[in-house]
Formats: sequence, C-alpha cells, structure tokens
Amino acid sequence: MDSLFDRSAIYFRELQSEICAALEAADGSATFSSDDWALESGGGGHSKVLAEGAVFEKAGVNWSQVEGELPESFADQIPGMGRDFRATGVSLVLHPLSPMVPTTHANFRYLEKGDSRWFGGGMDLTPYYFFREDAVHFHRILKEVCDRHAPVGDYLRFKKWCDEYFYLSHRGETRGLGGIFFDYLKGDDDSALERTFEFVKSAGRAFLPAYMPIVERRRDEEYGDRERRWQLIRRGRYVEFNLIYDRGTVFGLKTKGRIESILMSLPPLVRWEYDVHIDPGSREAHLLAELKPVDWLGIEDN
Amino acid sequence: MDSLFDRSAIYFRELQSEICAALEAADGSATFSSDDWALESGGGGHSKVLAEGAVFEKAGVNWSQVEGELPESFADQIPGMGRDFRATGVSLVLHPLSPMVPTTHANFRYLEKGDSRWFGGGMDLTPYYFFREDAVHFHRILKEVCDRHAPVGDYLRFKKWCDEYFYLSHRGETRGLGGIFFDYLKGDDDSALERTFEFVKSAGRAFLPAYMPIVERRRDEEYGDRERRWQLIRRGRYVEFNLIYDRGTVFGLKTKGRIESILMSLPPLVRWEYDVHIDPGSREAHLLAELKPVDWLGIEDN
Repeated sequence: MDSLFDRSAIYFRELQSEICAALEAADGSATFSSDDWALESGGGGHSKVLAEGAVFEKAGVNWSQVEGELPESFADQIPGMGRDFRATGVSLVLHPLSPMVPTTHANFRYLEKGDSRWFGGGMDLTPYYFFREDAVHFHRILKEVCDRHAPVGDYLRFKKWCDEYFYLSHRGETRGLGGIFFDYLKGDDDSALERTFEFVKSAGRAFLPAYMPIVERRRDEEYGDRERRWQLIRRGRYVEFNLIYDRGTVFGLKTKGRIESILMSLPPLVRWEYDVHIDPGSREAHLLAELKPVDWLGIEDN
Repeated sequence: MDSLFDRSAIYFRELQSEICAALEAADGSATFSSDDWALESGGGGHSKVLAEGAVFEKAGVNWSQVEGELPESFADQIPGMGRDFRATGVSLVLHPLSPMVPTTHANFRYLEKGDSRWFGGGMDLTPYYFFREDAVHFHRILKEVCDRHAPVGDYLRFKKWCDEYFYLSHRGETRGLGGIFFDYLKGDDDSALERTFEFVKSAGRAFLPAYMPIVERRRDEEYGDRERRWQLIRRGRYVEFNLIYDRGTVFGLKTKGRIESILMSLPPLVRWEYDVHIDPGSREAHLLAELKPVDWLGIEDN
C-alpha cells in the first residue's frame, strides 16, 4: 500500500478536482485556469483560479505537495524533531461577487516532521450580511461529519478551536461565523492515524454540502451599492487576518513557498475607509453583533 | 524650558497642521476632517483624514502623544530599561487618485524608554509609473537636508537604511524608490540630542518641498483603466508591507494603539489578482525594474 503521505496527496488532489467541478457548474460563466508549479526546495503544486465569474469574483483552490527545511526560529514551534518537513494539502478561499453570498475558506493538510505525522484543517464561513439559517446549516453539516467519526471528530472542540483561531484581536471580532478548525491530529499509532485520515476525507467531502446550499439560497438576492461597499470594507478584515495572523500564510512565506499561490486567498477588490460609521439597527450592525463565538446549534454547555 | 518630549510633541503637531494645510490647498476639492482620541493607557492623538479629493483619494495625517507599558516580548527589542515608554510623533500616508502621482509616506517620532531617548523617522516615495526626474528630485531634497545637518544627518546611511527597511522579502522588491529612514538617533548627551531634534525638524519641513513638486508635475497626466488597475494592484503591495513588515503598525497593534489611526495608512481601494501578467517593455515592467536600491544622485561608492 502507498504511504499515508502519498495517499493523502492523492486524496487532496481528487478533492480539488471535485470541488472545482462543482464550483464551475454553480458559476455557469467562468472556468478555472490551472498552473503547475515547482519549488527549488522540492515538490510543487497545482493552483486553480477562477476569476470574474457570475457567482465567484475570485475563487482559488490550491493543491500542493512540498518538502524542505524549516527556518530554525520556526521549526521549534512545530512538533517533531529536526527541521526537515514534508506537507501536502488542499486549500481554498472563495470570494463571491454578491455581498449576499458568504466568503468561505477550507483547508485540509497532512504533515510529517521528524518522527511526527499529523493532519490539520477545517472550514469556516464569513458572510457580509447575516442569515441565521445559513450559519445553522453550515454548522449542522460540520457537526454531522464530526459525529460520524467520533471520537476523532469532535465538533464542540473543533468549533471552539475555530472561534479562537479566526479571531482578529486588534478588532475584537471573529473573522466570521466560525466552523471547525483542527491541527496536530496525530493518533497514537498507525491505525489511529488511519482513522484520522478517514475523518479528514469525510470532512473534505462535507465542504460542498456545507457551503453550496448557501450559495444557491443567496445568489439571487438583490443588493445595491451600499451592500457592495460594505462587502469591500469587510473584505479588508479578511486581508488583515490573513496577513497578520494566519499561520498558513506565515508558514508559506517563511518556508519560501510560492507567493502567488499563498496570496491567492486575498480578495479581488478591497476598501479601507477611515472609521466607518455603522447605523445602529442596520443590517451591517446586525452582522457585527454576531462576530463572536455563538452556539449555533444550541448544544453547548449551559 | 519645556522638556524635549513636550517640545517634540508641539513641533510634530505644528508640522501636521502645516502639511494638512498644504495638501488641502493642492487638492482644491476635499478638506480634512479631524478626530481627537484618547487611550485608556494614557495620552491620545489627533487624526486628520481627507477622503475622495480631486488629487488625494485618501490622505491620513496622524499626530499622537502616548504612554504605556510595552508587552514583555516586545520591550526587549527596544532600547532602554524596563517596559514603560512614552512616544510622540506625526505619521502620514497619502494615496493619490491618479496612478501618475506617487503614494508617499513620512513619519517623525520621539521616544523615551527607561534612560533611553531617541528620534526616528523618514519619508519614502512609492510611484505606480516611473519618472526618473521625480526620484532624483525627491532624493536631492533629502540629501540637502541631511547635508545641512551633518554629521547628524547622513544621507547615504539613511538612504541605505530606507532601501533595506522598505523591502518586501517575499516579493523580492523594494516598496518604492526609497528615501531616507533613521531610528535610534540618540546623541551622546543633551546637546547632541538637541542637534538631532534640529535635524528632525528640518527633515519634517523638507517633506512638502520633496513631495509637492512631484504632485504638481504629475497631477494632470492622462491615464485610463489600464493604469488605474495597475495602481490598485500595486497598492496591494503597500498593504502587504504594512501588515506583514511595518514596525510602526506592529508597534501600534502590540501596544493597543487606536486601530483606526494605525490602519488609516491602508489604501482606499485595492486589487489582488492572481499571477498578474506584465508585458516585457511596458511601462509597468519599467517600474518593476526600478524596485531595487538605486543610486539616484550618482554619489555612492563605485
């Protein structure tokens, strides 16, 4: 049987194809273009980008399989002996054209460093306008996939991890309405690690059912200049998160990854205005009020 | 006589007024609005912002006088005993509407921490299209002011410092065409520190003569959608620099500064496109070729 690394790489590549096919079908207008790239340090990737579609203003879905040596200061922060690592994963960020359709991010990865091997990943939802049923739907699908793989899958733990990770401390806001996030899922032995891989595969396959029904529900909602402007301002928060806090971005920059593939998560068009005024009681204020950890499914400890 | 801290604070506030008056006059359309703000930790500031002008799409000029306690991990990286500090300074970033007019940044500051007291600052030029005479003019004014205050003023040293500081290592590009940058200018005794203050005052007063003639020369140049798109893409580099590398931004975020004043340096509208194609021989390619340390005045060691 192939190594877990090779099987993970193959699965992530398949997931990339499946997701891109579904996004193209939903968009109905633009198609993905593809780039194969290689790194000097070893390995490479396959980046797929769709731009200026009917539904997606920019959609980037990246697959990679890389190896190299971590900078010393960074190697200490990651499990496993030494500095040599290899990693494979799939990562996507979708920026819809309509402010009524949420931005989303998903990432699944497998890493090896020294004698350590682990999976990480997750997905989260970042809307511009708030629809409770969308948050509930997204989280319900995530809970179902976690429950199916318990105890490896642990919705409450991963949901909390997501709320804590996707947090802009300088703004005092979560990035969006959360989702799940997990890292360093090792398993105590080979068979436990295989069960983790089974969970990661199911979580990856849950992305489309978690996100696409929301796209279908919101894609034809009306909006105007006010909503578009708000979307561009909120996209600024996405940039702030990715460049200041995001470990995947920092990891890519520090390990001399491919810049265009790392930064293809950034939104196509963004506004920064000074001290934006929000009308109390407006739909914009309503979104802001929800940018905190929320028990969407009504199942957390009371 | 007032303390050096107080006199610096007063000077920086005067400089803010002078620069804003000149920018309003040049813009001829929009005016600055002002915000006074205070921090819980002590001190506060006066932020002035002009938006959607005829010349400036967004101009932010911030003055502040703050005090507080540095986080432990950050205090070690800065001269002086202990963690208590106070700081006063003026900082500006101007984002012109026309891609033919360069973006510019200037900052002058005085800090005290433990028994250490020092000045820092500088200014630099970030065009979207390359005009050699603009770079030469800007650097010539900076050299003159440094020469007038030698040996405190040291153009070649500060110019090199600027090239090294305003560098996007993940892109392998300087942010723009450079300028001067200096920090930790202490002086060995009180009278040396006073001479440093004299230099900083002159450098501050050199900002308008260094920058405004370039605005006048370029403000009526024609441009179209292609040039505007390029400007928005290049502004993305400005965001990347400020959020990933800029010490002033990091300092502000780590010391719980006022977010809106720290991030008012970010451009009003920005594009990120995937893997932008640059035609060889184009004006865009010409700019990129100049984004490296260049001996604009023909005076560096051969």
